Amino acid sequence: MKILIIGGAGFIGSVLVKELLKNNADIIVIDKLSLGSLDYIDTTKVDFHQLDINDIECVLKVLKDKKIGEVWHLAANSDIPAGVENLSVDLNDTFMSTVSTLTIMKEINCKKLYFASSSAVYGFNKNRLHEDIGPLMPISNYGAMKLSSEALISSSLESFLAKVCIYRFPNVVGIPATHGVILDFISKLKKDMSRLDVLGNGSQQKSYLHVSELVEAMLFINKNTDTGMNYYNIGPMDDGVFVSQIAEETCKVISPDAKIKYQETDRGWVGDVPRFYYSIDKLIDLGWKPKLSSLEAVQKAIKEIASQEGI
Amino acid sequence: MKILIIGGAGFIGSVLVKELLKNNADIIVIDKLSLGSLDYIDTTKVDFHQLDINDIECVLKVLKDKKIGEVWHLAANSDIPAGVENLSVDLNDTFMSTVSTLTIMKEINCKKLYFASSSAVYGFNKNRLHEDIGPLMPISNYGAMKLSSEALISSSLESFLAKVCIYRFPNVVGIPATHGVILDFISKLKKDMSRLDVLGNGSQQKSYLHVSELVEAMLFINKNTDTGMNYYNIGPMDDGVFVSQIAEETCKVISPDAKIKYQETDRGWVGDVPRFYYSIDKLIDLGWKPKLSSLEAVQKAIKEIASQEGI
Repeated sequence: MKILIIGGAGFIGSVLVKELLKNNADIIVIDKLSLGSLDYIDTTKVDFHQLDINDIECVLKVLKDKKIGEVWHLAANSDIPAGVENLSVDLNDTFMSTVSTLTIMKEINCKKLYFASSSAVYGFNKNRLHEDIGPLMPISNYGAMKLSSEALISSSLESFLAKVCIYRFPNVVGIPATHGVILDFISKLKKDMSRLDVLGNGSQQKSYLHVSELVEAMLFINKNTDTGMNYYNIGPMDDGVFVSQIAEETCKVISPDAKIKYQETDRGWVGDVPRFYYSIDKLIDLGWKPKLSSLEAVQKAIKEIASQEGI
Repeated sequence: MKILIIGGAGFIGSVLVKELLKNNADIIVIDKLSLGSLDYIDTTKVDFHQLDINDIECVLKVLKDKKIGEVWHLAANSDIPAGVENLSVDLNDTFMSTVSTLTIMKEINCKKLYFASSSAVYGFNKNRLHEDIGPLMPISNYGAMKLSSEALISSSLESFLAKVCIYRFPNVVGIPATHGVILDFISKLKKDMSRLDVLGNGSQQKSYLHVSELVEAMLFINKNTDTGMNYYNIGPMDDGVFVSQIAEETCKVISPDAKIKYQETDRGWVGDVPRFYYSIDKLIDLGWKPKLSSLEAVQKAIKEIASQEGI
């Protein structure tokens, strides 16, 4: 049976593909290459198709007569501020991509779906965020459309799916970096080594996980859960690092003398969750925990991304 | 300032319009009249436009130069099984109607939104359903698309809205009945007075509220809450009535000798929530409670609908 990976040429998708190939998985990747790249996957080993998943007719043509055992849906907008500014970005890339995925799965009679969701579904909630907390009031269209995707996957489980894993990601770092705070900082420093302008006052505190550990956790959850609905936070064991620490760590590696300039607001942009305390107790109970702390994941990623960017 | 009511010619919308007209409100109704009807509203007293809210361009033309102070969004699919069978029904009528509403509000710079949500957002959860419970795992596409609408309204509050009221409705009964279990039973009995076929085994237990009380509660919440996010369950004080009771009460009025035939399953259809225990403590704390029990609301509605149907 083949594995279909939607968004498989992106940041997290390409790392997942590499990991699955170690077990000789038979993989089809669909990716529209908006941020993804063919440089990230070995196209001699996977069946790659550059397509928008929302182009359902073309996708169904590609999948015709291929037996798909499971679908990993990792396609989404990754520019949260752009999605707040223009709703159609997250509507199409983060939500309609899920509608299309489900429509296609129903059509080809595939019943296992693994979905990349996000801590953004929780919105700005000061309590420790375990999976069953309420209310879920997202503050970005990205978070809203991830929650909407979860809701539709839930109702689809009732009507035609057999197994679902929903992974709620924290901030994820590593390579191939296509977006995110570290790449942003390094790109700014490449333009001007003397200063680093940070969005927000640096007090935003967030959980970071290295992509290698994230993918390990996803596969672990997949392997150790039964049919039905499975939903897990994935994250580090700590309460995260401050954006100011990320700025300092990045400067330390790239340009130790750079002046770091902060803004006055505690939010980087509309829809930015300034801090969240993530519970991964459910995942620990299942038997997995990360080795790296948020800070260690960030430090590792800074070196990797610096190298990727030729520094 | 004008009040825009989307879905204002439908079951609940038309009752709301009548109530608002008592205070001489200046009302614009947009309704595509799929289940709604011009018989339900006084078109000499409201500015009515037969339009699909998803036809954004036409709606904006109608609203041009009209100052809209608040929007009530009550447009949605009301045939839950149809929406499970065909996702596009709830996608368009229950969710995209919200996307369009928000798009239009942003365009015309209107900042107050009152939204008809549903107990269906809770899915099948055996605990008492208070507003902050989790997880929210809807089992119908209708519930999923109501939850998605809430999520997007939440993120829109962060970016451009000023006040939101989300009303989570229970089952609502009364006239003008356009759909629902009582109308369904009466229609069946009109065809064959000797028997009544019930979907499910009759053990489904659900909260019922009379539409007159529902609208009273919506206006009460609206009036007694501030800016920001306000979300309330609206329902009766009891744990509901069994479908078997509704069948018996209906037969009592329409055809006392009819034989009631049940199925073996405890769910009427895929996506049917067989029972839920609704908490309205938050609403009681705000200062409102219903006068009628679920059973009294059902009994009142049976008489009203019988009369509506010419029996």
